[in-house]
Amino acid sequence: MLRRIHLGLIIFLLTLPIVRAQQITRMDPTFWWTGMKNPKLQLLVYGPDIAQTQVSVNYPGVKLDKINKVENPNYLFLDLTVAATAKPGKLNFTFTGAKKTTYSYELKARTKSPKGQGVSSKDFIYLVLPDRFANADESNDKFADMADPAADRQNPFLRHGGDIAGITNHLDYFQELGITALWLNPVVENNQPQTNEGGSLRSAYHGYGFTDHYQVDRRLGGNEAYLKFVQAAHAKNLRVVQDVVYNHVGINHWILKDPPSKDWLHQWPSYTNTSYKFQPVLDPYSALSDKKVTLNGWFVPFLPDLNQENPYVANYLIQNALWTVEYFGVDAWRIDTYMYNDQAFMNRCNQTLLEEYPNIHIFGESWVNNVISQAYFVKNKINFPFKSNQPGTLDFVLWTAFLETINQKSSWDGGENKVYQTLAQDAVYDNPLKLVTFLDNHDTDRYFSLVGEDLNKYKMGLTWLLTTRGIPSLYYGTEILMKNFKNPSDAEVRKDFPGGFKDDKENKFSASGRSALENEAFNFVKKLAQYRNNTPALHSGKLMQYLPQNNTYVYFRYDAAKTIMVATNPTEQEISLETKRFTERIAGFTRARNVLTEETLPSLATIKIPAKTALVLELLK
Amino acid sequence: MLRRIHLGLIIFLLTLPIVRAQQITRMDPTFWWTGMKNPKLQLLVYGPDIAQTQVSVNYPGVKLDKINKVENPNYLFLDLTVAATAKPGKLNFTFTGAKKTTYSYELKARTKSPKGQGVSSKDFIYLVLPDRFANADESNDKFADMADPAADRQNPFLRHGGDIAGITNHLDYFQELGITALWLNPVVENNQPQTNEGGSLRSAYHGYGFTDHYQVDRRLGGNEAYLKFVQAAHAKNLRVVQDVVYNHVGINHWILKDPPSKDWLHQWPSYTNTSYKFQPVLDPYSALSDKKVTLNGWFVPFLPDLNQENPYVANYLIQNALWTVEYFGVDAWRIDTYMYNDQAFMNRCNQTLLEEYPNIHIFGESWVNNVISQAYFVKNKINFPFKSNQPGTLDFVLWTAFLETINQKSSWDGGENKVYQTLAQDAVYDNPLKLVTFLDNHDTDRYFSLVGEDLNKYKMGLTWLLTTRGIPSLYYGTEILMKNFKNPSDAEVRKDFPGGFKDDKENKFSASGRSALENEAFNFVKKLAQYRNNTPALHSGKLMQYLPQNNTYVYFRYDAAKTIMVATNPTEQEISLETKRFTERIAGFTRARNVLTEETLPSLATIKIPAKTALVLELLK
Repeated sequence: MLRRIHLGLIIFLLTLPIVRAQQITRMDPTFWWTGMKNPKLQLLVYGPDIAQTQVSVNYPGVKLDKINKVENPNYLFLDLTVAATAKPGKLNFTFTGAKKTTYSYELKARTKSPKGQGVSSKDFIYLVLPDRFANADESNDKFADMADPAADRQNPFLRHGGDIAGITNHLDYFQELGITALWLNPVVENNQPQTNEGGSLRSAYHGYGFTDHYQVDRRLGGNEAYLKFVQAAHAKNLRVVQDVVYNHVGINHWILKDPPSKDWLHQWPSYTNTSYKFQPVLDPYSALSDKKVTLNGWFVPFLPDLNQENPYVANYLIQNALWTVEYFGVDAWRIDTYMYNDQAFMNRCNQTLLEEYPNIHIFGESWVNNVISQAYFVKNKINFPFKSNQPGTLDFVLWTAFLETINQKSSWDGGENKVYQTLAQDAVYDNPLKLVTFLDNHDTDRYFSLVGEDLNKYKMGLTWLLTTRGIPSLYYGTEILMKNFKNPSDAEVRKDFPGGFKDDKENKFSASGRSALENEAFNFVKKLAQYRNNTPALHSGKLMQYLPQNNTYVYFRYDAAKTIMVATNPTEQEISLETKRFTERIAGFTRARNVLTEETLPSLATIKIPAKTALVLELLK
Repeated sequence: MLRRIHLGLIIFLLTLPIVRAQQITRMDPTFWWTGMKNPKLQLLVYGPDIAQTQVSVNYPGVKLDKINKVENPNYLFLDLTVAATAKPGKLNFTFTGAKKTTYSYELKARTKSPKGQGVSSKDFIYLVLPDRFANADESNDKFADMADPAADRQNPFLRHGGDIAGITNHLDYFQELGITALWLNPVVENNQPQTNEGGSLRSAYHGYGFTDHYQVDRRLGGNEAYLKFVQAAHAKNLRVVQDVVYNHVGINHWILKDPPSKDWLHQWPSYTNTSYKFQPVLDPYSALSDKKVTLNGWFVPFLPDLNQENPYVANYLIQNALWTVEYFGVDAWRIDTYMYNDQAFMNRCNQTLLEEYPNIHIFGESWVNNVISQAYFVKNKINFPFKSNQPGTLDFVLWTAFLETINQKSSWDGGENKVYQTLAQDAVYDNPLKLVTFLDNHDTDRYFSLVGEDLNKYKMGLTWLLTTRGIPSLYYGTEILMKNFKNPSDAEVRKDFPGGFKDDKENKFSASGRSALENEAFNFVKKLAQYRNNTPALHSGKLMQYLPQNNTYVYFRYDAAKTIMVATNPTEQEISLETKRFTERIAGFTRARNVLTEETLPSLATIKIPAKTALVLELLK
């Protein structure tokens, strides 16, 4: 073969920098499993000048299909096939260059523990911001060797020290409340520096700037704490929703120190922010340039935008998804900033997850203002040129309608008509039961403030949340009337849960620590959630809603076993509701049980609905 | 055969009332044609006890397929097939009962004159209310033998005497303005009594209460005047849109004096009005009872609701549609209260018309408030359980957005974003170019009042109307700044066109009769409409719209021949628009012609847009 090497190549080799010792700094995914349905694995190998080595591996059932080199010689991407016959063990890779290096890569046996079980309309999700909920381990509050070494509960913008073990410690609390699934804002490492926003230094306590996809943040307890949390949750029949970000990473992500290629990120001649506008993605008349700004513009300067059209980026993200479900055993997948991702990539990613974990639920965040646009980002019945395969989505449109119905005066299209008219458009979704409904979250004003701290209005919205179609979710603290607007900052709606931290004077995890009003709220949620948990008609039962009339909005959830009537009076006066027009649903029933008060209504002919109240009536023969 | 008549029948015959002389009062359609593509014809025959006769007809090529009897013995419905070989002539029907009666029914030869030519995005439609436009013939203003014998120009609620000939007299006016199609509010006979609405007696001058489907109202000039009008319009290349009502008829409709069956109308135990709410029709969760009220409830007490599920009603309406196009030669079909009709009937009706007249355009009135609902009533790309086949619709959603963009301050989703976001949802329509756009109509506040009588705003909206996608339409008088809100009554927006009536002090049909401001408005519409008429890029050219930025909304219409840029500044200050972000559309062009001012812009780098202005620029190489 030597005679084939011509002069040019010799000169080329002579001009190369001296090849450093090949040491493998990383191989991602950090480990893998035998017996995955999907036999494909693309390993990212990172080490100085690793691209200049010859790679080999010899392991029964494992085939090295292709060695991919990229712009940066410090990377290799190895395409492997792991046959069904492969046994767990150590794959010893040999990298032969100036020196020979080996790397032992683990193929684990898959565990039998539950994973990817999904969440469905049977569930009631609780969203918790780990840094702000409960601090079980003060030793992990801060680390001097991290980019942001601070923790300070007195500063709303810095980390407060909450951790995953703190959440694990309160599983009984969730169960008592009737919660069946926990969604944590991202737990993945955010080794980000503090950033200056509006003149104040802020920590990445929210979790949306990943710096290592294979590490849960040490300050939250690391991988071990998360694994324990999932197992403990599962043991109590609580499912776990993973909050993931594909669109961007933290500016401090390890890979960005020495990226595989310039196009690992979306690059712009000068800094370009996303427009945060979703319309160009689905507008049949949009300009490519607008679409590019929406999709490829950066979310903020410290959250650079991943180029998912780069196949190595795409594979890296997809495999991390599989790894995360397989390793931690999470059940569902909440995807951040869904609409700013490359939608073809999203489909591929969703499909890969669904093929491996058919029961997993996936629901992205697409903050839109109309049903057509919401439908675009989820499986739908519209013949768009692009067809999303996402099973679910957060229902931002219904969220807006909930609040409008609570806060607007009745009018031809307003007030109680808002929820009614929004649901009336549900025909465009493949399955509206898979949409995740909510009243607030970490990015919105808190619900109790949005309803003017009016407990009656608060209960009305919660009643709809827990009885209409979809998968309800609750933002931590809403059950104890935590309040505030985002003004002056997001931190206002991300306060610590009282009782979660050692020196807290109040402990709202227990009834004795809650005020009478807070207990009323807590018990309301609990009562309705527990009823919901035991009432399949409220999960998958049919919905029938009546045209709002005389200021009332009435709907039914029903199946062969039960019929539940929800009758809302959003006005300031009691209403006597004639029920004759609901014959289609109440025929055959003569009485009802008020689910919230346990009172029995001896007749259904006329139903008194107090002011600002949504009655929940289980109809009885 | 006699021996087969048994005793029961003899007794039955003896108990029948004495059979009156068979006289045929009506046979509808009043005549028909040979050579129709559709060979089927169902004749309604009305005469005392006509059902007790034997019917026969003997005519080459005509087959009496079936004789249908209904509840009322005064009707027969005869199913005929008119073969392609049948020649024009008189069909002599024989009705044999106690007496023998004959009826001579005419089969005409089809004329070669144009009919069902359609309107398209090449057109500019002008909507005119015949009673309120121009009075050419004062002898037909009122008739003592009609249910409402009054005419009084001083009373806003009574007839004013305008007629079809009055419209025909002003064809040059329409042509001057750049109009290419005329839409008259219904011309069909409305022999309705005055009704008491809110304490004042009102005439049915609007035309939406038909009393004889085969007669144009005598007060408008009757069938002859309408036929002449269509022919004169065609001679000037103006197309004609027929305004039709399927949902209801006038309470004085001849057929209701002695209806064929009780279920000719939707009957209710007690008077039931429609809810005027469209949601139950498309809501996947709606109650049948709500749907029934929407569809079968009466529009008002004096406009009873036709039961289109009754096949004779359906056939009667469909055949009248064919007859109207064939006889008068109208080109397009505007359907009143489209969403309150039985949608399966509407599809059958549309299909029959389209099969006979493939180029006809059909666009209904569905006054909805969101794109999904608008899409439901037109050919769309949503997999609704029911699929509409209607080619077009009036675009109420874009109308709302036009006004919001004109009148709202700029905000994240408001102001100029309203038009942008509405059009961004166009992917759900089969063909958005077929939607009929407007700024006002006979049921809305007048556009000039809606924009606060601000001529700059007025021009802005008109510019969009005449340059964005769709088939633009103008309500009579909008071009001369007719104004008013519907408060206190609809009559406020249906005033007489000044100059259309003999004693008018002003004549706004001519420039000399218009004020300077009115001429400015008129000339603006004329200038833009004439430009539009000669610019195919504004008819069927592609649309590209850019995300509104810095308070400007910019879009392009373009084809191989021309690129037109429309740049809107809805603010109170002049804006200097950097055009770099529009490279995708302006690359290759260096200059532009301002279509409205005829000025040339020597450079495209920066474009100055005056306050409250939509520039129309034809780009030049």
